[in-house]
Amino acid sequence: MSTNTLQKDELLRGGQFLVKETKCEDVFTLEDLSEEQKMMRDSTKEFVDRELWAHWERFEQKDYAYTEETMRKAGELGLLGIAVPEAYGGMGMGFVSTMLVCDYISGATGSFSTAFGAHTGIGTMPITLYGNEEQKQKYVPKLASGEWFGAYCLTEPGAGSDANSGKTKAVLSDDGKHYSITGQKMWISNAGFCNMFIVFARIGDDKNITGFIVENDPSNGITMNEEEKKLGIHSSSTRQVFFNDTKVPVENMLSERGNGFKIAMNALNVGRIKLAAACLDAQRRVINEAVKYANERVQFKTPIINFGAIKGKIADMTTNAYAGESASYRAAKNIEDRIAMREADGNSHQEAELKGVEEYAIECSILKVAVSEDVQHTADEGVQVFGGMGFSADAPMEKAWRDARIARIYEGTNEINRMLAVGMLVKKAMKGHVDLLGPATAVGEELMGIPSFDAPDFSVLFAEEKDLIARLKKVFLMVAGSAVQKFGPELEKHQQLMLAASDILIEVYMAESTILRTEKNAKRFGEDAQATQIAMSRLYLYNAVETCIKKGREAIVSFAEGDEQRMMLMGLKRFTKYTNYPNVVALRTQIADKVAADNGYTFD
Amino acid sequence: MSTNTLQKDELLRGGQFLVKETKCEDVFTLEDLSEEQKMMRDSTKEFVDRELWAHWERFEQKDYAYTEETMRKAGELGLLGIAVPEAYGGMGMGFVSTMLVCDYISGATGSFSTAFGAHTGIGTMPITLYGNEEQKQKYVPKLASGEWFGAYCLTEPGAGSDANSGKTKAVLSDDGKHYSITGQKMWISNAGFCNMFIVFARIGDDKNITGFIVENDPSNGITMNEEEKKLGIHSSSTRQVFFNDTKVPVENMLSERGNGFKIAMNALNVGRIKLAAACLDAQRRVINEAVKYANERVQFKTPIINFGAIKGKIADMTTNAYAGESASYRAAKNIEDRIAMREADGNSHQEAELKGVEEYAIECSILKVAVSEDVQHTADEGVQVFGGMGFSADAPMEKAWRDARIARIYEGTNEINRMLAVGMLVKKAMKGHVDLLGPATAVGEELMGIPSFDAPDFSVLFAEEKDLIARLKKVFLMVAGSAVQKFGPELEKHQQLMLAASDILIEVYMAESTILRTEKNAKRFGEDAQATQIAMSRLYLYNAVETCIKKGREAIVSFAEGDEQRMMLMGLKRFTKYTNYPNVVALRTQIADKVAADNGYTFD
Ligand SMILES: Cc1cc2nc3c(=O)[nH]c(=O)nc-3n(C[C@H](O)[C@H](O)[C@H](O)COP(=O)(O)OP(=O)(O)OC[C@H]3O[C@@H](n4cnc5c(N)ncnc54)[C@H](O)[C@@H]3O)c2cc1C
Ligand SMILES: Cc1cc2nc3c(=O)[nH]c(=O)nc-3n(C[C@H](O)[C@H](O)[C@H](O)COP(=O)(O)OP(=O)(O)OC[C@H]3O[C@@H](n4cnc5c(N)ncnc54)[C@H](O)[C@@H]3O)c2cc1C
Repeated sequence: MSTNTLQKDELLRGGQFLVKETKCEDVFTLEDLSEEQKMMRDSTKEFVDRELWAHWERFEQKDYAYTEETMRKAGELGLLGIAVPEAYGGMGMGFVSTMLVCDYISGATGSFSTAFGAHTGIGTMPITLYGNEEQKQKYVPKLASGEWFGAYCLTEPGAGSDANSGKTKAVLSDDGKHYSITGQKMWISNAGFCNMFIVFARIGDDKNITGFIVENDPSNGITMNEEEKKLGIHSSSTRQVFFNDTKVPVENMLSERGNGFKIAMNALNVGRIKLAAACLDAQRRVINEAVKYANERVQFKTPIINFGAIKGKIADMTTNAYAGESASYRAAKNIEDRIAMREADGNSHQEAELKGVEEYAIECSILKVAVSEDVQHTADEGVQVFGGMGFSADAPMEKAWRDARIARIYEGTNEINRMLAVGMLVKKAMKGHVDLLGPATAVGEELMGIPSFDAPDFSVLFAEEKDLIARLKKVFLMVAGSAVQKFGPELEKHQQLMLAASDILIEVYMAESTILRTEKNAKRFGEDAQATQIAMSRLYLYNAVETCIKKGREAIVSFAEGDEQRMMLMGLKRFTKYTNYPNVVALRTQIADKVAADNGYTFD
Repeated sequence: MSTNTLQKDELLRGGQFLVKETKCEDVFTLEDLSEEQKMMRDSTKEFVDRELWAHWERFEQKDYAYTEETMRKAGELGLLGIAVPEAYGGMGMGFVSTMLVCDYISGATGSFSTAFGAHTGIGTMPITLYGNEEQKQKYVPKLASGEWFGAYCLTEPGAGSDANSGKTKAVLSDDGKHYSITGQKMWISNAGFCNMFIVFARIGDDKNITGFIVENDPSNGITMNEEEKKLGIHSSSTRQVFFNDTKVPVENMLSERGNGFKIAMNALNVGRIKLAAACLDAQRRVINEAVKYANERVQFKTPIINFGAIKGKIADMTTNAYAGESASYRAAKNIEDRIAMREADGNSHQEAELKGVEEYAIECSILKVAVSEDVQHTADEGVQVFGGMGFSADAPMEKAWRDARIARIYEGTNEINRMLAVGMLVKKAMKGHVDLLGPATAVGEELMGIPSFDAPDFSVLFAEEKDLIARLKKVFLMVAGSAVQKFGPELEKHQQLMLAASDILIEVYMAESTILRTEKNAKRFGEDAQATQIAMSRLYLYNAVETCIKKGREAIVSFAEGDEQRMMLMGLKRFTKYTNYPNVVALRTQIADKVAADNGYTFD
């Protein structure tokens, strides 16, 4: 059973997962990789082991030159051009393959994966997505091969989350031949060794900023501060960049005047899902190291893996990584399919890619938040498994913990992404792109009605779990629906409610993806072969339900009162109830025992 | 209203908080400090601002010499001898004053507070608690003045959590005059500049280790590795120490042969509650910096403090700090009173202190876990409030985040302390020191009975909250009681259940302490003056209830089935139900607005 080739009306739109049921045959999983994709994954892993993992000290010792050197090597292997169309010197592979490389290249050190992401993602994509033919011909082949490196200059001292508020100016010359750019950019990854910047600047008093391709030429008014001293990703070059009357030919404007904010946001959409992928192998490697240590470290006359406290950690870490994989590749394939569909409909590849990613911006934000928090949590537990050695820079957990911290900050902070996820969904509903109103009204009616007392038949694998997922969706619809009704467009100002709703949305997507992946695999490989994955899916869902209860209640008691509150709390209870609770400790033990026996993570 | 002077039978025993109600008049709060204690606090703060806070870069740059220099200065000010009896050159102040200094000295840098704690706590206390008169006369005055510094050598490469399993040997010389110590100790704080070690070693094949006072004399077979490279507390000296046939006069044995494990554990009890205190001012300073930043940083044309997402963080951070204070000083005064009571009963000060602290070992473990996790969470949110600047080593959050990480590892990992808290409580019950059986049986009967449907009168301040606390205690009794019944002494092997029960126990103690403090202050200062504190107490409790629901359910579904499970889940629901749910978002907003207006934490 491979993944169904979906017809246009079968492929869910972004955000629609919330109101439509997805069949397990319709999700793509890591187990569906083609032979070519597996080769790609393996050669990426091999590169990482050889060039990065074996030299982790150099990355910790702020050996920026080594980052550049290894980036160059990645270019030679073609790893920088995966997503770039063949016409511009790339490999023209699909979105799933791009994700695969982002995933497996990230395991060794956040320094390299930041350099990789800044270059291939936000440094290159604005040109492949928005550049004209000349721009693409001129710059993309160099970027795809690693002859040149790119950087992305959006953030300024006064403009971070509020990215459109930058003060950098672009002034057209009298002869109309070039723009002169002046301003200060901050936190620019790859600044120290890049050949080219994507720079966002404002022309006149434009409402929106404009994007430019700016070659890095110190004789052209470009200066930099020293490297920033950072908590983690020590060998990722991060500098302030000053443009002082930097001349940029008019041909180097990206897209149109005032289109920069849109470019910036769309580059970030792709960046977000890729960042999620880039937090996956980091998790797997932390799990591997933690399990190896726990199998070897003896206290109280027994390897510490035998303690329930340690098993609980290993099980949670493993389950989150598995869930992250499930959701990331599910979304990646949706994007790939959407792009293909649009191309089939006559869109150019460029346009198709742009719209394909934009369609799933909600899922991209969800993934960014969920997986960046998982990698932190996993590294944190990794430190704890190592005890005192977790605090030592000679052991692997210390750097993993520091490196993980950046993922919650860049590509839009997790607060911003949480609010975006819900905000975009509500907007889609308003525009009629996703019908939330109908289902929300139905939930409202269900709340008033008498619940069915029929004992449901939960004998088939995941029958109860899928029923629960359907009900968790109702929790979101109940909470977000009433909040929209109550506050209308003012809802945006009620950020704590937005955040609570967002946490429910995130858990729904992650839990559903995990169950669908396992269901699909259980159908083709058998339930026995998937016993651990079944346990992980159940454990993930159990925790997701707990989060939905907590966040749902927090929202309900904060915006509803009296009878309405009581009714919604009743609904919350009804929608989150298990008929057969899983034995959580037994699930964790089962999962940890398998990982311990395998001495590592073996589910990818 | 000052704190009641409690009669022997009124002062609760350690762990008894779980089964007895405490009157608010009976808890000591930060608002009860004497003038002398306030002066002590203020001069500590002043010292910290002048000598530590102003020089934070030196601590980050691994300037170990500066740590030693400032420790010396602390000694000159008398800060190293607070807890030491006057007879041995100290100030002989009570336990609360000792805690105050540990608290306020910790704000600037974990490097100094680790040095301070290792010296005054585990480095000095084994002698003041277990030393004989000659040992005390000889060593304690030097340690109290800062002429000498102490270190504590318990951990070995193969003996961390399992502290009694060390391989270091002590062999009596033929003439019976000295022991010769040989072994490797690891992670020894202050090793680089200490004059004396407390060393634990095994004599022959003794079951338990023995404690020794060992002067640091390199010509006596003592060598050290280089400084460990650590994640945080960069200027705390941490080295491996090797003893190779190190001669120690027999007079330097602490207490008796084979008593070392007991010494080590009791030193850790004191260490744990002091460590909790040492995580308090670190939290306040992080909050202060975060609020200042949030008040100043403008995005989207408004200071970011105006965003609900930021308010939520500030409110949670503040509430946790307030709860940590409430519980830490409550327990500290219990210890102080217990010591006084024992002295009045004719115990020597030494014996009284030993037993006084030992009595509250459960509370010490609870506090260690709760407050060390709060300081990490607070630093983590502090990083997030700073956005990209949170990741910069030039801004204050980066080091706070790294420094906080150690507190969950040393003085017994949080896993070990969680299990100890429940384990010790169960043992106390078995020994009849705390009657858990009676109350647990009563809860069992209540579960079978019909709940009362009378509408309770919750009009008095905290009436509902206190009723809830009483019910949360029932949740613990129900869960732990049934687990004990089911597993008997085997319960220890069911660590995940122990951990879940422990989380409930912790929340009960923290939430109750918070409410009692505020209740006491509201009675004397008026409810209006305590409006924010009332909001914090309610918010803390709300979150505590959520934790108890989650952990209670996790335990119940994992060890009970069928009717028993259903009955206990019903009980869980009944015991955690609010009649009037608080508006959580409104509470957070109220708290954050006050902190924002004050531009800092002003509740201590
Ligand atoms: C190591 C590193 C590498 C980076 N690389 C690049 C790069 O290559 N190119 C580039 O352009 N940028 C880069 N950045 C910048 C990064 O994208 C920004 O740091 C990020 O967007 C946050 O902006 P800020 O730091 O200004 O934080 P702020 O926007 O000031 O945010 C501070 C806090 O306020 C919150 N906040 C802000 N606005 C709102 C709101 N409306 N509602 C609720 N909460 C809000 C945030 O969530 C955060 O908690 C990098 C940053 C770092 C640290
Ligand atoms: C910076 C620093 C300073 C220190 N200073 C001192 C000092 O001055 N003097 C000194 O003597 N020591 C010191 N220590 C040592 C510290 O006390 C130990 O690191 C700590 O007790 C944990 O022991 P460990 O590192 O051997 O971890 P381990 O005991 O190996 O623990 C590894 C993991 O297993 C878990 N685990 C272990 N046993 C069990 C169990 N029975 N059940 C469930 N889980 C279990 C732990 O919780 C942890 O998660 C210091 C450590 C550090 C990092």
